Amino acid sequence: MAILVVGSVAFDSIETPHGKVDHCLGGAATHFALAASYFTDVRVIAVVGEDFLPKHEAVFTARGINTAGIERAPGLSFHWTGAYAGNLSEAQTLGTDLNVFERFEPKIPDSYTDSEYLFLANIDPVLQARVRSHMPKVRMVCGDTMNYWISAHAENLAIVLRDLDVLLINDGEARMLSGETNSVRAAEKVMAMGPKSLVVKHGEYGATGFFSERSFPGSTATPRPFRAPALPLAEVVDPTGAGDSFAGGFYGYIASQPELTPAVFRRAMFYGGVMGSFACERFGTERLQAATREEIDARFELFREISHLEAV
Amino acid sequence: MAILVVGSVAFDSIETPHGKVDHCLGGAATHFALAASYFTDVRVIAVVGEDFLPKHEAVFTARGINTAGIERAPGLSFHWTGAYAGNLSEAQTLGTDLNVFERFEPKIPDSYTDSEYLFLANIDPVLQARVRSHMPKVRMVCGDTMNYWISAHAENLAIVLRDLDVLLINDGEARMLSGETNSVRAAEKVMAMGPKSLVVKHGEYGATGFFSERSFPGSTATPRPFRAPALPLAEVVDPTGAGDSFAGGFYGYIASQPELTPAVFRRAMFYGGVMGSFACERFGTERLQAATREEIDARFELFREISHLEAV
Repeated sequence: MAILVVGSVAFDSIETPHGKVDHCLGGAATHFALAASYFTDVRVIAVVGEDFLPKHEAVFTARGINTAGIERAPGLSFHWTGAYAGNLSEAQTLGTDLNVFERFEPKIPDSYTDSEYLFLANIDPVLQARVRSHMPKVRMVCGDTMNYWISAHAENLAIVLRDLDVLLINDGEARMLSGETNSVRAAEKVMAMGPKSLVVKHGEYGATGFFSERSFPGSTATPRPFRAPALPLAEVVDPTGAGDSFAGGFYGYIASQPELTPAVFRRAMFYGGVMGSFACERFGTERLQAATREEIDARFELFREISHLEAV
Repeated sequence: MAILVVGSVAFDSIETPHGKVDHCLGGAATHFALAASYFTDVRVIAVVGEDFLPKHEAVFTARGINTAGIERAPGLSFHWTGAYAGNLSEAQTLGTDLNVFERFEPKIPDSYTDSEYLFLANIDPVLQARVRSHMPKVRMVCGDTMNYWISAHAENLAIVLRDLDVLLINDGEARMLSGETNSVRAAEKVMAMGPKSLVVKHGEYGATGFFSERSFPGSTATPRPFRAPALPLAEVVDPTGAGDSFAGGFYGYIASQPELTPAVFRRAMFYGGVMGSFACERFGTERLQAATREEIDARFELFREISHLEAV
């Protein structure tokens, strides 16, 4: 089933202890789409500038991603400059040039309207809500956000949260959104804002899924939380986009399955971790472009091996 | 098989957002011994002062713990004062009164010399090494340490590390000991100092086990790391001793098994998490004293449920 993702397609200039890249293809929608493309059809809504060349579009089309919704505007594409130090757990933003993204008005191509799965990547919640309202028949809506929208646009974000099936955020965002330091109480408060399920990403420590009683239709009790591991990596080259890649693997797998059950959700969290781990291995989208489904499934088994009591 | 633990038996005065306790029974050896006592015989070597009353000793004997090696000295017992704020992930030490602990000279009762498993809790590495040297025939030696010994007593610590079977430390200690921020490279460096295996505790995110090719006799390849979850707790009343309780559950389970295999090690890490989670639920040793083996095994199954793809 096709996923429609709305978010940023951008260029990133990144410095990590492993090197430096200038204007490599990036953006939340890009990482998400590439990761999800290994599981299902993906359609992108974004805006780019004149610096977005055919070779950049080819990164999407080579993975079968539908680019009909990538609008061209006069000017330059969104450009993010950032650096990582230490154990690369947190990016330091050195520059954010919104460029064409500043006036982004998402337009949904007619060919996209039958998309059954919608992913609202991290953009202005006003735009997230607008796209959501134009897709009333989607089967499932999953979304992301960040500190900036939580602190400065809380009311708009509240509208988006209201009817989200799954919210994917990190620990700091969960604390900020809930005002709670305890992760379980933070999850309860966030889910009380709307999301049926919540996936909290812990970076190198994996992710935890929290569920409300509304998470799985027909379920008789509130499912337990689920803890998915992350792969211990000896070399994190560039973590940029790892969270979006997690979301792409997670949601791509869900969209490839006939129905959402607790077992599907668990495997989706593993596939999220798998795609996040690939994303970290090279700069930009390089590793995500070059993965194979065989590699992905082999790494899924590795995730099982490092977290399950019994060897398979 | 009996475990001999050498470490602190102390009194703790603790303040957390859930309340305050004054001079409750604590100390690394206490938490370790109580947690391990659900799995195997435990013998304690420690020193206490005149404030250590029969009711305190009864906490040990009620769990069948051998207290023949708890030496009485004139003066007061070791007393730690600490506080936790926020998400209770880190203690702030407000006071450390070593008292009788300052001149602690571990003495091994004759009845302890046939102990097959030795646990060197977090004390001066000079004392750890001394006890180790008096127990040449033990089957396995497992140890803990802390920032203070790593930074100020590195040479003495190096001697202890040299022939340790398992070192249990937390993330910050692993980084400090190795000088590496990447967790995998940190583990490699620490194991190059001696320990055959390394368990790095991540607090609310669980723990990771790392193994060298010497970890399991007869194993043909270096085993993969293993990631054990922690239980998401809505209420962490007092995390004091959670790490020692982890060590007690971990090592107690190992000592109860006929041999150390990768499967035993994995289950031991789960039991470590189980005992750590109980420790957090009440102040001091209250919850650890009151657990039952049935509760422990039920929580073990809960740990499996929250981390395994397939429901059992």
